[in-house]
Amino acid sequence: MKSTSIPASVSVIGLGNMGVALADAFVKGGHPTTVWNRSADRAKGLVEKGAVLAGSVAEAITASSLVVVCLSTYKVMQELLEPLQSELSGRVIVNLTTGTPEDARKTAKWVSVHGGQYLDGAIMAVPQMIGLPETLIFYGGSKALFETYEPTLKLLGGNAAYLSEDHGVPLIYDLSLLTMMYGAWYGSLHAHALLSTANITATEFLPYATNWMNQLVAPLLSDPVAARARDEGNFKTDVSNMNTNKLGLEHIINASKEQGISVDWLLPVHELAVKKVAEGYGADSFERVIEAIRKPQVI
Amino acid sequence: MKSTSIPASVSVIGLGNMGVALADAFVKGGHPTTVWNRSADRAKGLVEKGAVLAGSVAEAITASSLVVVCLSTYKVMQELLEPLQSELSGRVIVNLTTGTPEDARKTAKWVSVHGGQYLDGAIMAVPQMIGLPETLIFYGGSKALFETYEPTLKLLGGNAAYLSEDHGVPLIYDLSLLTMMYGAWYGSLHAHALLSTANITATEFLPYATNWMNQLVAPLLSDPVAARARDEGNFKTDVSNMNTNKLGLEHIINASKEQGISVDWLLPVHELAVKKVAEGYGADSFERVIEAIRKPQVI
Repeated sequence: MKSTSIPASVSVIGLGNMGVALADAFVKGGHPTTVWNRSADRAKGLVEKGAVLAGSVAEAITASSLVVVCLSTYKVMQELLEPLQSELSGRVIVNLTTGTPEDARKTAKWVSVHGGQYLDGAIMAVPQMIGLPETLIFYGGSKALFETYEPTLKLLGGNAAYLSEDHGVPLIYDLSLLTMMYGAWYGSLHAHALLSTANITATEFLPYATNWMNQLVAPLLSDPVAARARDEGNFKTDVSNMNTNKLGLEHIINASKEQGISVDWLLPVHELAVKKVAEGYGADSFERVIEAIRKPQVI
Repeated sequence: MKSTSIPASVSVIGLGNMGVALADAFVKGGHPTTVWNRSADRAKGLVEKGAVLAGSVAEAITASSLVVVCLSTYKVMQELLEPLQSELSGRVIVNLTTGTPEDARKTAKWVSVHGGQYLDGAIMAVPQMIGLPETLIFYGGSKALFETYEPTLKLLGGNAAYLSEDHGVPLIYDLSLLTMMYGAWYGSLHAHALLSTANITATEFLPYATNWMNQLVAPLLSDPVAARARDEGNFKTDVSNMNTNKLGLEHIINASKEQGISVDWLLPVHELAVKKVAEGYGADSFERVIEAIRKPQVI
């Protein structure tokens, strides 16, 4: 039963750092909030602020029509919810657990079979950022369902981005952004290892790293013309071509080996450039290695 | 003999796209310019503009006190210069060939033994950018020598950055920045491969990639506090820790495998996170993997 003045009750299952932040945002937003966690002591602070601690997962699910799930893995989630199929009927599950796109798609089907509705989401933020207007959370599933709960979900992150009817898409966006981050981050750590062989500190190097990231790397990966070329499979270039990049990767690998720095992550990247040069694409852009990332083949 | 009104003569050895751009900048700057290349036809446009084509490498070296070398590899350079040791005496060699820091250090010693002076440089630009005031070129070697030739070298790139007496340092900076670029770039290509499994185009994804690069990744790698922590080996974190990042990498790897996308470059990154968690550093920052990059060990 809905009231026009009292916000609808919500439940939050899973009180890791992220789950606590999510429940806290609902409590602050005035929603009667029921929480559950395997270790009940994680709920203490929330209960002091007015949340209700459920005695079981079943109790947490039946307490609200909107149930937000945020657990460490899909496996943990499946073990918790599997016995509670009958409780799912009529519930809306918003699953913010991280996993693979196939995890999300399978869970969506499973919830639907048992009469529930399902949105999958991916939080692009650390717990400290939950509740801020700029915090980005991706959602996928029924658009109408998303729109119904959008005002409530915006309490978690004001930048609630609906992406697709495909429940797997939020995690694809999530993992794609993370992949970009790990590439840049690990590259920076490798660079630091290389610099430290000549006693150059991260602080000394920082002005150059900063300019490079902001004036070359970020623009390279934010360029609409480059994105269109990627979509069209147009790999022409009049700047740095595959031959040049292959050679650049070789210099990095050789210099790193000379200094005892691990190059395991760069060898496969170089291998793809070698493969593309061997196929006759030396004058094309390095972007053409994407063909080999998509369909890995033994060289 | 120097004149106060006529710029000193310079020679450029190696007329790849970069060498042509370098020679062109000297010609534009009013320097009598001698050039040499294995295939003489590469010099045609320059000769039309007033450059002199030398008949041999020896002739090019003796034509000027300042000799800029820009060849494809150090090996090519060594083969060319090895027979010309006596011509090196009294010359200043500025070597802009890309290689490893050890290549640069060895070449500096070799030139010195034969009575020449040596600066090593690394061009952080494509040929189209040569001659612009903002174009960055790193230099290493004698500071006094650099300062003598600084006005001339600034014709090649206005942002001429002297780094160190160590001739290897410009290439260390160069390769470090390239490593950051390849990490981010390859990460973005992997992301694109993942996105395309759900028919999401690079153009659709671009607004998110752009915000992510500019608001999270670039700031992460441009943060003076983070740089200082790295220098101090302080790996405490109150945001995303090694456990979280290990799990994030697992999700990327699993999702990519599900979609037939090559994960060879990510497996060693994940392995280092696993190693650090096993060593008891799960609550520390992901930055701690640098210890394992520096001293690779069998796990």
